[in-house]
Order: sequence, then structure tokens, then C-alpha cells
Amino acid sequence: MSFDRLISGIKRMNNPTVAGLDPKLDFIPEHIKAKSFAAFGQTLEGAADALLQFNKGLIDALYDIVPAVKPQSAYYEMYGWQGVKALSETIAYAKAKGMFVITDAKRNDIGTTAEAYAAAYLDSTAIGNENIAAFGADALTVNGYLGTDGLRPFVDVCKKNDKGIFVLVKTSNKSSGELQDKTLGFQTVYEFMGEMCEGLGSDTIGEYGYSAVGAVVGATYPEQLTELRQKLPHTFFLVPGYGAQGGGAAGLKGSFDKNGLGAIVNSSRAIMCAYKTENIDGEAFAEAARREALRMKEDINSHI
Amino acid sequence: MSFDRLISGIKRMNNPTVAGLDPKLDFIPEHIKAKSFAAFGQTLEGAADALLQFNKGLIDALYDIVPAVKPQSAYYEMYGWQGVKALSETIAYAKAKGMFVITDAKRNDIGTTAEAYAAAYLDSTAIGNENIAAFGADALTVNGYLGTDGLRPFVDVCKKNDKGIFVLVKTSNKSSGELQDKTLGFQTVYEFMGEMCEGLGSDTIGEYGYSAVGAVVGATYPEQLTELRQKLPHTFFLVPGYGAQGGGAAGLKGSFDKNGLGAIVNSSRAIMCAYKTENIDGEAFAEAARREALRMKEDINSHI
Repeated sequence: MSFDRLISGIKRMNNPTVAGLDPKLDFIPEHIKAKSFAAFGQTLEGAADALLQFNKGLIDALYDIVPAVKPQSAYYEMYGWQGVKALSETIAYAKAKGMFVITDAKRNDIGTTAEAYAAAYLDSTAIGNENIAAFGADALTVNGYLGTDGLRPFVDVCKKNDKGIFVLVKTSNKSSGELQDKTLGFQTVYEFMGEMCEGLGSDTIGEYGYSAVGAVVGATYPEQLTELRQKLPHTFFLVPGYGAQGGGAAGLKGSFDKNGLGAIVNSSRAIMCAYKTENIDGEAFAEAARREALRMKEDINSHI
Repeated sequence: MSFDRLISGIKRMNNPTVAGLDPKLDFIPEHIKAKSFAAFGQTLEGAADALLQFNKGLIDALYDIVPAVKPQSAYYEMYGWQGVKALSETIAYAKAKGMFVITDAKRNDIGTTAEAYAAAYLDSTAIGNENIAAFGADALTVNGYLGTDGLRPFVDVCKKNDKGIFVLVKTSNKSSGELQDKTLGFQTVYEFMGEMCEGLGSDTIGEYGYSAVGAVVGATYPEQLTELRQKLPHTFFLVPGYGAQGGGAAGLKGSFDKNGLGAIVNSSRAIMCAYKTENIDGEAFAEAARREALRMKEDINSHI
């Protein structure tokens, strides 16, 4: 009921990073696509099969050095229910390899509907006499625009099932400040959302001092990262925006606490497309991904 | 590239309402579940089949009197990819019957990822030489916490494909005011989001005066509905919260313009579960849904 499981993995591997699995077809090596299209045609099924094979190759190459993966739901949904099936299979495959799975879906709704999302991603669904986990992730990203009654159902399942959520606080994109940096009297919107995380998680704090209610804070805003780390002592951070979006490792220093914990940094494209950056054959995508993941680990650890 | 198609349907049927399709298993008549479970077992497939059969019955009963349906994605995702397949089939079935389909998924992300969501729900996905519509809805609900660069990709596909989005402005739930009612200098957060809708939609205004960028404003807040209708002359409203959530028809008056247009009011549970309210056999669920939809139409029209 906290982020202890994730933090244990980070400590065990000495690696505070998560590999984003955002498998656009453009990122997938030709030999994988050729095989999937040969089997299923240039169809949603064919694309979904390519996604899954690519992800399996990445997970096989990373599971002993990277503690977590973060599939981004949009890149599965764009391939229809067949893509969503590949998401479900990706989650199961990563979990079977011992990885912590953060499904990045930024879900949000009123309480009764938030219960359905919580069931989908962090709990199970009752069907007749059965209870079946629909997706079975370890954590989910959520959007708190609707306030606490849209978040509580997620917190409740986190407590029940030892899961976690990451609430959007200060996002990594250029226009995040349009609303998030505005001031509400004496605090910014992002500070307000951060305090909401502290409040919602207050009775879920684990042995490392962090609750089950984390926050998304972008690597592209190092000052706010540092400020929020100090103001939100029990809120674990998921930090996107390192690498492709322009956030450097030096700016990440402020997201960690004095024990070097408190945050996990995501990289998606740099790992998935390492074979392109290295300009090598796509057949070797998995080894290239592993090299980039190790490089990233060293880069970030050197700044903690 | 505006909400003209939706508004035409509303005018043709003289009915500014949308039927929410939130098919929890608890809402589905026993005879449908028994048949689906007999065919597929008490599994995600069995549940998904029941969802689809229930939805088809509702759509058959409503398509000539109600212009639009609003499937709530959470209630499909909780049944796994099988449920998401039922969502996809529900959208296709409703569109084949001529209904306008608003997928209520409240999606949101940074620009590149918002492009993937826009492709999924309002456009198509390139797969080899093919372009395939993954879900093919007419409109999508979105959350604007990330600012304009997270919304523009949706607006772009609205322009290209004559689709629409509804941005969360003032939601119907009890805690919506925690953030949304707070003031940013001289305006509330919900006013700020409303103005963002007006700005983003400004070059998509159709013949009825409304753009492709609508707003979600809850029936449970009649004062804000009235205020926002006046302040946002080109923003079409999707109004949840009528009925089960406590919003009455009298309070909806302010959401319509002088021509009786400008909003579409959602009802989910009252229509889906009309057979329970009438305390009749579940075999007659569709006729009961139709009676409730006609009652709601009269109720709301009597207050415009």
C-alpha cells in the first residue's frame, strides 16, 4: 500500500529508471513488422502483434537491469482493441519477469466511474462468481482535475492491493504552465495538486517514507522538481521528459532525497530507438536498448 | 469541423439529449447475461458479449428518438481488451444506425501522445499502406490540465475529419470545486478552461454558431451552467449529471441559448435501468429505456 515494492526494485538494481514502452510502428524494426504483417496482414492485428513482439524483446533485454516499465496506453489504443490486447499481454509479460508495471493512462472521472478505472487497472472485476483482473498493473497515472472524490477510489484499491498511483502535478510539456503555474492565492496549481497527493496518501506511507500516492513531475522543469521534492516529503515522483523531451540528468538531482530515493525517471524513445541512434541493424534492437538503459542508469546515478 | 452534425440531429429529433452507455453487469438484465455466460463462460469474453448485446438492444430502441450515445470507456476497460472490443463494436453499431457517438474517455497527455489518442478515437492509424480507424467515434471527451499543446492534436483532427471534442470545464461531481472553483487572479479555473475552449475552437465555428471544441459542464451546477453559457457563446456543452446524480431539468434552462440550442444533456443509468425503476421483467428493458428517453425529452424540452 505504498511504493515500497517499486523502491525495493530500484535499490536492488541500483537503478532509479523506468523504461517507457510506447511502441509506435515507426519505432519497431522492420524484421518484426515483416513477420507480423506476413502472419496477420497490414491490419490492427498485425500491428498489435508487432507491438507485442517488440515489447517482449525489450523486456527480455531489460528486466534484470531496469526495475520497471511504463507502457503508454495511447500507443496501444491507436491500434484498436487489438492494440489494447497487446497492452494487456505486455503488462502480463513484464510482471512475469518480475518488473513493476506503471500503466500510463492518465485516467480520471467522477467517483463511480473512477471505481471502474481502478478495477480495470489496479484491482479486479466481478463477473458472476469470478473476480478477474482486467489489466493487472502495479500502478497507474491519473489526472486530478476532478478533485479528491475522483481520486479516492484509486487510493482505496492501492491500500487493498498494494498498488500505487501517480497524479499529474507538473507535467513535462511546454504548455504545462498555462494552468499548472497559475497561482491560486498563495500557491500555484501544481503545488495545490502536490498537496492533494500528500493528503490522499497520508495513511499509506511505507518503510522508505513514501506513500502510495505519487506525482508526475517533468524533468523539463528542474526548479519545480527541486521545490516539490522539498514540499512533498512523502510523495514519490514519476519523472518523464528525460532525454527526447530535453530534460538532462543534472537537472534531476533535485528530484531525489538525501538517501538517493524519491523518484523514478522515465526514458521511452531513447531506449526503444537506441538501434536507430546507434545506426545499426534493427535485428540488434534489444542489445542496443540494453546499452542505452545502462548508459542512462550511469548518467543519472552520477548526478544523485 | 464543428458540432453541426450533432446539432442537426438534435433539431431533427427535437431532442437535446444523449443516452449514456455505461453497461455495468449489474445493470444488464439476467436473460442477456445468462445467454452470454452460457456461450462464453463467466469470463471477460462472456461479460463483454453481454455488454454488447445490451447496448445493441438499447440502440435499437433509441436510435430514432435520441440523436447521440455516449459510451463511458471505463465501463468497457474494466472488462479488459474484450470489453474494449465491445466498446469498438458498440461505436460501430450506433454509427450504422445513424447516431452521433461521443466516446467519454477524458483522454489527456503531452502533444505527441495526444496525437496517438486523437488517431485512436477521431482519426485513423497508418499500418503499412493502410489507414485504419481504430474506434471511429464522432467526438471525444478530453481533460485540459496539460494546457493547449495537449489539446491541439485533437483540434487538428476535428478540423480534418469533421469531429468534435468536449473539454472538462466544470464537472458534475461533488469535489469538482476543489480545484475548478478556485480563483486564478480574476477568474476561476473553470472559467479559464472555458476560455481555452473558446480560443481553441475559434476557427471551427459552424452554421449554428458553435465550434468543434465543446465543454463538459455538470447539470449539478446550474448557476455555473448559466454563467458559462453566457461567457462562452461558441462552445457547445455536454451536460452530465441529470437524473441519477441529482441535476433537475429546471436547472438546465441556463445551458441553452435563445434558439434552444447549445447543449446536449446526458442520462445514463435512468435510461439503462428504466426496467428496474419500472420494476418490470428485464426482457422488456429496451421498451422501458425508450419510455424513459421520451420522458426525459419532454421533461427537458418543457424547460427550454
